[in-house]
Order: sequence, then C-alpha cells, then structure tokens
Amino acid sequence: MKKTRNPIITLTTDFGLRDPYVAEMKAVILGICPNATIVDISHEIEKFNVKMGAFILASAAPYFPKGTIHVAVVDPGVGTKRKSILIETEQCFYIGPDNGVLALAATKQGIKHVYEISNTKLMLPKISNTFHGRDVFAPAAAHLAKGVPPADFGPQIHNIIMPEFAKIVRKRNSLIGEVLHIDDFGNIITNFSKEDFEKLGVKEVVEVRIKSTPLRLKLCKAYAEAETQKPLSIIGSHNFLEISISQGNAAKTFRAKIGDKIVLRRAK
Amino acid sequence: MKKTRNPIITLTTDFGLRDPYVAEMKAVILGICPNATIVDISHEIEKFNVKMGAFILASAAPYFPKGTIHVAVVDPGVGTKRKSILIETEQCFYIGPDNGVLALAATKQGIKHVYEISNTKLMLPKISNTFHGRDVFAPAAAHLAKGVPPADFGPQIHNIIMPEFAKIVRKRNSLIGEVLHIDDFGNIITNFSKEDFEKLGVKEVVEVRIKSTPLRLKLCKAYAEAETQKPLSIIGSHNFLEISISQGNAAKTFRAKIGDKIVLRRAK
Amino acid sequence: MKKTRNPIITLTTDFGLRDPYVAEMKAVILGICPNATIVDISHEIEKFNVKMGAFILASAAPYFPKGTIHVAVVDPGVGTKRKSILIETEQCFYIGPDNGVLALAATKQGIKHVYEISNTKLMLPKISNTFHGRDVFAPAAAHLAKGVPPADFGPQIHNIIMPEFAKIVRKRNSLIGEVLHIDDFGNIITNFSKEDFEKLGVKEVVEVRIKSTPLRLKLCKAYAEAETQKPLSIIGSHNFLEISISQGNAAKTFRAKIGDKIVLRRAK
Repeated sequence: MKKTRNPIITLTTDFGLRDPYVAEMKAVILGICPNATIVDISHEIEKFNVKMGAFILASAAPYFPKGTIHVAVVDPGVGTKRKSILIETEQCFYIGPDNGVLALAATKQGIKHVYEISNTKLMLPKISNTFHGRDVFAPAAAHLAKGVPPADFGPQIHNIIMPEFAKIVRKRNSLIGEVLHIDDFGNIITNFSKEDFEKLGVKEVVEVRIKSTPLRLKLCKAYAEAETQKPLSIIGSHNFLEISISQGNAAKTFRAKIGDKIVLRRAK
Repeated sequence: MKKTRNPIITLTTDFGLRDPYVAEMKAVILGICPNATIVDISHEIEKFNVKMGAFILASAAPYFPKGTIHVAVVDPGVGTKRKSILIETEQCFYIGPDNGVLALAATKQGIKHVYEISNTKLMLPKISNTFHGRDVFAPAAAHLAKGVPPADFGPQIHNIIMPEFAKIVRKRNSLIGEVLHIDDFGNIITNFSKEDFEKLGVKEVVEVRIKSTPLRLKLCKAYAEAETQKPLSIIGSHNFLEISISQGNAAKTFRAKIGDKIVLRRAK
Repeated sequence: MKKTRNPIITLTTDFGLRDPYVAEMKAVILGICPNATIVDISHEIEKFNVKMGAFILASAAPYFPKGTIHVAVVDPGVGTKRKSILIETEQCFYIGPDNGVLALAATKQGIKHVYEISNTKLMLPKISNTFHGRDVFAPAAAHLAKGVPPADFGPQIHNIIMPEFAKIVRKRNSLIGEVLHIDDFGNIITNFSKEDFEKLGVKEVVEVRIKSTPLRLKLCKAYAEAETQKPLSIIGSHNFLEISISQGNAAKTFRAKIGDKIVLRRAK
C-alpha cells in the first residue's frame, strides 16, 4: 500500500495565541483534510504589519518540503475588495490576501501561476467579512491539500502586490540600509545580505551607525566570540548582517526599531 | 484497509506556554493514544477565569469535526470536591472540571449525557492534587479517543454547573449588555448577538456608551470601511457586536475591560 | 500490516514564538521524517538560561513514551567548540549542545551511551554558526527517528557537562535551599523535594523565610484549601515544595526570583 506523505499546511498570522482564531482555522482544515500536518510559523506578527509577515514567511518557507501549503493572514483589508489569492511556485503553494504578505516568499521560489480564490464552493458555507482566515483561506488550503487542482479555485491573474522593502544605497566607502527585523533575542537584523557585505570588503572590523550611534564592531563567526555583553556583528542564519550583543539584547541597548536607518563603513 | 480518521483532542487551559504543563498533558495523551491529533485552542486564558475559558472554548468548538474531544482546564478548585466530568453532546465530547468551563460550549451543541470521571483505572497511576489536567483529564481524553465508552468513566450525573454571563436588558430604545471579551487586536466583543442588534433596528449609525464614554459609531461590514484609527461597530466573526478601531486598539483607546457595562441606542 | 507508532520529537528552546526559528526546525524535521509527531515542550525558556531549560525538560520528559527524542536548544555557545551530543538513556534520546541542558533529564533516566554529533552527512548541507537547532540538531533528531543508529552520529564520549543546581543544606531544625523555578501562575517552586520535606517532620504548619520575609504557612493538599489570596505551602505536581497564593501570584507578592535563598523550619 503506497503511503503518500501527509500534506503540510503552515500558518503565519497576526492573531496571537490567546484567542480562538488560530484554532478555528485548524479546525476547518482538519474537518476537510484530516491527515494534514499543520505547522505554526508565527502567530505573533505585529498587528497589521504585512511586511513583517512577509519577512517571517520568506525566512521559514525555504526549509519546508516541496508541496507545502503556506497560509498567511495579516489582513487589514479583510472584507474589502482586496483579492484572495493562491500562488503556485516551483516549490510549493501560498494562500492569503493579495497585499504583499505572500509575494516575497513566493517570488524567491519562482512563481508559476497565480489564481484568484473566488470559487465559493471551496469556502465555508457562510463567509464572514472579518475572518477570511477561517472562512476562505483555511478551507482553500485544506481542499488544495486534498488534491483539488489550483485552477479550480478561480481565474488566473497576472499581477500581485509586492511588499516594499528599502533598497540598499551604495556610496563610495559605505552602504546605507535599514533594520529589517528585531528578533526575540534582540538581534538587529539588517537588510544587508552576506553578498552586499562582502562587496564592501570588510575584514575584521566594521563601522556601523544605527540612527546616530556610531559603533566599531568586530565581525564574528559566532555570538560567543565576543565577550558576554559586548556588541558584535555577524552574518546570521538567514544570511543577513546582524548587530548583536553576546548574551545580551542589542535592540534594547541601542534602541533600534524596524525601519531604522543603518550605515555601514569599512573600518580604516 | 479502512483508515479511520485520527481522533482530534483539543486543549484549552490557563497554563501559559512557558512551563512544562501543557507538554505533560500531550505526553500523557500520546502515550495512551499515539495517533491522536492534538490541537491547542488557547493556553492563555486569564488565570482562574472560568468564564473566559468557557467563552473561548464555545467560540472555537463549533468549527471542529464531529467526534472531537475537547479538554478544558481552568481549574481553581483542583484537588477539592469539585467533580471531574465528561459531557457527551450531539457533536462531540467535553472533559474537564465541573465548574462551568465546559458547559457553555456543550449546551450549545445539545447535551446528551454527563458522566462523573471517577474510574481510577482510566487515570494516571499516581494522581496529584494540583494537576488533574495531566493526571485525570489527559488520560480520560486519550482513553475516550481510543474507544473506551463514556459510561466506563463513572456514573451518569444530571446537574452540571453553568457559567453565569450577564443577560441583555431591553429598554424601549436601548439595550444594556456588557463586554464579553477583549481580543488580542483590542476589539471589544460585546454580548449583543447579531439578532439582539437587528431587533434594535439600527441602520447606519449606533449610539454606544462604554462605561461613561458616549460614541456614535458607523455600523460597518469590514474593519477597513472606517478610516485608519477611526472607531466603528461591526458584527464580528462569532456574530457578536464588536466595537473596534480600524487598524487600532479599541480596548486601549476606550479603556474597556471584560465585564464593563455597554448601552446601545439607535441613533436619532 | 503492522503500524508502528509515529516517532515523537519534542522541542525545548529559548527562541520564543514570534520568529521563524522554531518553524524552521520543524520544517527540517518533517522534510527528513514526514511521520514525526512534534511536541513543543517550551520555547519560552529565559534567553541563555541553560539551568531553566534543564529543569523544564527534566520535568516534562518522564511523561513521554519510551523512545521519544528530546531536542533542547538553549545554546549561548553555538558556533564555538562546545560539543553537540546525542544521549541514549534507558527510556529515550536527548539531542542538543553539551552545556548541561540535556544532562539533568538524561541522568534521571539512566544514561546508557553518549555520542558526539559530528557526522556531517546527518546535518543540513550548509551549517550556519548561529543556528545549530535547525542545521544540526533538527536533522539529527529526524534521522534518529527514521532509524539511523545512534553510533552513526559520531564517536562515543564519556563525559558531559552537568548543570549546577544548589544542594540542600541541612541544619538541626532547618533546611536551606533555593527557588528553582517560578511558574506562570507565580507559584514559587523550591528545590526541596517531598522527601527532604518529610524528613523535616512538618505536620500542619511550616516556617519559611524567602529572602528576609518570614512566613508561617499551612501545609495544604490543594491550592483551594487556603482562602482566596492567602499564602500556603504545598507539594506540587513534580514533588517539589511550592509556596503559593490561592488564586493569586506568590512570586509577585513576595518578590521572589529564581535562585533566591529559602529557609524552612518546622513550626514550633
């Protein structure tokens, strides 16, 4: 008897874990596709912060097996005319609102087709105006997991909304970027990729300006290379430059927030 | 080979997610019933707040498939003479202390039988006085999931404790109710149902008094119908009237708490 | 057709639930071992607090079925020369850094063998210096779950680092210990075991000094034996003495922290 792999459905939302909302999505999924394996990516996306949702989803998605179905619901426009979409990439599937939350992860994997989710037969019988996560996206994910073809969900569309992340500005000896994410350890994750950083030609020490604080930071290979409570720079596990404090909280220490400007300079 | 659906067991507690308590319940369940699918409803019920547990469970339960086993442990009376119960409804099963936490959800689904859980053969060998979630309720759920008949858990009983929620008071042009729940978005969820509200004959605008703050609120179909940071009223995804702020936090803005009095009036 | 039990893999980390880190570990596990049942023990270990991780894991582990694979990642030394280890006990398996986080739980179950995880074929192809949870420990757990023999992960080793917990000091009429854990209810969990406590010969009342606050506490069998908001002492569900407040928060009330000194005396 051929045992096919149980389908994996991931959830990324700004719902928090106190309310029944996440469980209702899981209930709907399991009602339609009982053998789904549901994995929470995060339910603590900052409320309405589509860019943060996009970043977290794009960070985690590459590690999931081929065929995984990712549902993301950071959806301030729920109930308005914003579209519900299903994206098929070379690797997997993305379901959620067309507001940019899916586009970053999907683009990285190579978008094959995008469908508008409009087939009400593949939604809950009663659709609220306030909770499409439960009434539209969860059933779509579960039906897709059961083998309903993507084209059955609605017409193909050709434009989706992209989230806007700041671009790196290159000057002669410096790079200007921004804080992309502050993680739960207080690591300040910048939008400088490993490649951006390598082009700058930094060897052992980098000059970093966060807002108006100038820092000279050792470029480390491990957090513990710096002394406890000392700042350092490091290429993190997603290949972005991080400003960290060994066993401390860099974001609190330097009062950094998402979107803050960061200037990098090769130390003289 | 007939593949029966894996049994679903849900958990609703006030344990939080930092301690090992929730994991111990899951360990016990999987030790007895390895193929159970365990779904967390919430572990962030306010400590000892049986009514909040009852509300969250009753919100989520209707979305779960027939046969689901719901375990709820908000249990300030653990170790005292309060009963442990198993409720069989037309739809599913409820297991937990007899203090009201199960009764709201169960009543809505039509209670068929209630059993006192007293058969120590279906509990852990050693039963603490402080953690029946692990020692009594988790094993009961797992044995039930494996097919032990409800009547094996103990004698049938005919009265259970109901949680007391405030009733709506109807005056000529107004309704008096209360705040039932504040969700993680800060939405103020009232105990006015869609039906209560429709009887009041509100068309476009409703007058709401939260504590002593008078508001004239547009009745919206979607949060984003109101301008960003503007208050609105809306029938939420569980069919209760909510007072919300578009992309903002209504509870913080209006300093609303669970139990606060709310007066509704049709706007002149 | 013999259906073998799905392997259980547990996760204990200090990662929090906001970031994609936990999901990435789960993604890697499911990519290698699709039928694994993954159970979160806690992701809210205090950052870098190896002792707290060791305590939480050792509390939960005994309730899991034989053969469970426990992964714990509280890992301030990630990327340095600290070893990665796999411990086989009489009951189950432990995977994580060799810094003490595994040793308490493993020792209690009887350590059979310890292996250094060094076989890069059983890791992700690209190993970061900052996230061995995803790149080393998650794949190790998944390969072990699929049946790879423990000895394939690397050479056997004979010494592991033990976490240092304070020992109880016995005086003529008193015991000196410390606060082992503050749970989410604010229960002050001490390192006095039920046996320590019984040897002291306490009958109904115990004198407790937390820091400099002297208390005379009734020894209760259930939290609700004391009046609401009154302090009590009780043997908790893991057989340690707890100082609690009935439906209140003892740690906040007495400003107790992990590591605070506690003196017990039989009341005259």
